[in-house]
Amino acid sequence: MVKTIDEQRLLDILGILRYNKGPLGATIIARRLEISGHDIGDRMVRNYLQILDNKGFTKKAGHLGRIITEKGIAELNAEKIHERVGFIKSVIQDLTYQVTYNHLKRDGDIIVNISLIGDKRLNTALKVLKSVYESGWMINPLINVFSAGYDVCGTAIPKGKVAICTVCSINIDGILVSRGIPTDPIYGGIVEVINNKPEKFVEIIRFDGSSLDPLELFMAKGMTSVLKVVEDGKGRILANYREIPASSRNEFTEFLDQISTLFKGIMMVGEPGEKVLGLIPSARSCGVAVVGGLNPIAAIEEAGIATKTRAIHGLMPIRMMKHLEEFI
Amino acid sequence: MVKTIDEQRLLDILGILRYNKGPLGATIIARRLEISGHDIGDRMVRNYLQILDNKGFTKKAGHLGRIITEKGIAELNAEKIHERVGFIKSVIQDLTYQVTYNHLKRDGDIIVNISLIGDKRLNTALKVLKSVYESGWMINPLINVFSAGYDVCGTAIPKGKVAICTVCSINIDGILVSRGIPTDPIYGGIVEVINNKPEKFVEIIRFDGSSLDPLELFMAKGMTSVLKVVEDGKGRILANYREIPASSRNEFTEFLDQISTLFKGIMMVGEPGEKVLGLIPSARSCGVAVVGGLNPIAAIEEAGIATKTRAIHGLMPIRMMKHLEEFI
Repeated sequence: MVKTIDEQRLLDILGILRYNKGPLGATIIARRLEISGHDIGDRMVRNYLQILDNKGFTKKAGHLGRIITEKGIAELNAEKIHERVGFIKSVIQDLTYQVTYNHLKRDGDIIVNISLIGDKRLNTALKVLKSVYESGWMINPLINVFSAGYDVCGTAIPKGKVAICTVCSINIDGILVSRGIPTDPIYGGIVEVINNKPEKFVEIIRFDGSSLDPLELFMAKGMTSVLKVVEDGKGRILANYREIPASSRNEFTEFLDQISTLFKGIMMVGEPGEKVLGLIPSARSCGVAVVGGLNPIAAIEEAGIATKTRAIHGLMPIRMMKHLEEFI
Repeated sequence: MVKTIDEQRLLDILGILRYNKGPLGATIIARRLEISGHDIGDRMVRNYLQILDNKGFTKKAGHLGRIITEKGIAELNAEKIHERVGFIKSVIQDLTYQVTYNHLKRDGDIIVNISLIGDKRLNTALKVLKSVYESGWMINPLINVFSAGYDVCGTAIPKGKVAICTVCSINIDGILVSRGIPTDPIYGGIVEVINNKPEKFVEIIRFDGSSLDPLELFMAKGMTSVLKVVEDGKGRILANYREIPASSRNEFTEFLDQISTLFKGIMMVGEPGEKVLGLIPSARSCGVAVVGGLNPIAAIEEAGIATKTRAIHGLMPIRMMKHLEEFI
């Protein structure tokens, strides 16, 4: 289907609003469009927003700007089939750029995964989370729980369900990028753990070679054994792998110390050219293997509780999240 | 773990025997090792085979050569964790090279998928296969069914289960390679079908970016709706995409006509540079989209019958396979 430029631009604006946490004004939308190569100016954006308002696809949120409506999301989903299929790496890079977490203030936005489960299973699920956290395989104890009726980053929570939001391990990349350390997220994978020690990657999928999050796929195929790792120190966990410039390694490791009170789960930072859990980095690069943020959710599934999980789902202010103990 | 050259070579030989359909002699093993860059000669291979026999990892199969034993397979699996994780594309290329199908004689070896299901569900499963075949979304009606106790390409069929072998769509690439037309298998994916017409790829995973078969992963995540396509002509099917040199397009299409009585499911052969179901081919290449061989199995899962499926599993003489009607 060929679209007019106007139609395409309307969809671009809807897409920007869809993946933003809160309302956006015309100026910021115009700047985002400019970044993606469409320099149309604030005024044109205002015209487009008026058209979208008239169609009921967007609405004003006070003086803060526009938000997308349910109808707008439906329109976007219906149109998605006509878009070129993209890779998850673009989503990762788009979201990491928006991470504004400040480790000193413990403030700002972070990327979250969202998992829907039956509301009657919440207590059992929280106990599983706790066991994974206590054994050291949950990168961050902060979570949030939303009940039916809420809309979390564009996902409406249906009746009978609750949503658990967990911290995504890709936040590491977001924080580094915001500090001027470029990271290249390369693989999602499965790591074999023996005696509580990560041994090596046994399965991998490239972020720039898949339209879906690899960790979601591994979970769906039931390839993890996180509960066994929790119980016996032996099993398979979700993990991911990125590379950083060799010259940034020192700054990287110093910086990690600073945030290690909050973000755990860095399994290995290789020396330049050194193999990292079986993966060989590019020239003048260091490999960095990190525990996947979805491991507690994989454990919930292993415990027999079905989840509907969307990894790398959206942004959330870290102040909205609480230590999981507070929910138990 | 560092291995001696001897240990590594013993594992290489076990690996060659593991992924071969029948017995192999030292000469052929030596040639295969040579192809992978290890020119050690027939005589050394004979020495290694003697060591493997003594360990109980291989045994003689008459005058035809050695086969791997159950103990040998177990050893190989235990050692696999120490190997570098590889991509499914290497498996595809290694197997396509071994396809010896001759369309005139209707003879030779082809690549099969294998699916284990509960033996009591076999009749229902066969009816599902038939409906998918009759609606045109099964690339080939030839199947084979094995009962418990059989060993199919290294997979032992446990009690209470049967194995259904189906024809893998990657055979297209095998046949083309054997005819001197190089194909480059690029993506496994999901194609949206509307009014019985394939519209476009909506999900893709690169074969050279994943250690697992993408179609297995899509199936596990329940992303297909093959039965809906069978019933209403609308839904999502498994598919794959390869590229061929632009200069080979004529020979390719002529050749496809010849085998179309047996292999169906070529959805589109693009002109040089033309988009194929939403995917843009490389320069001087044509994209070719093919219906996935696993669609009938995905339909079985959609019908509520659990399967344990290994795609692109191994080689089987086509003479061992029969039209699915013969099993109903």
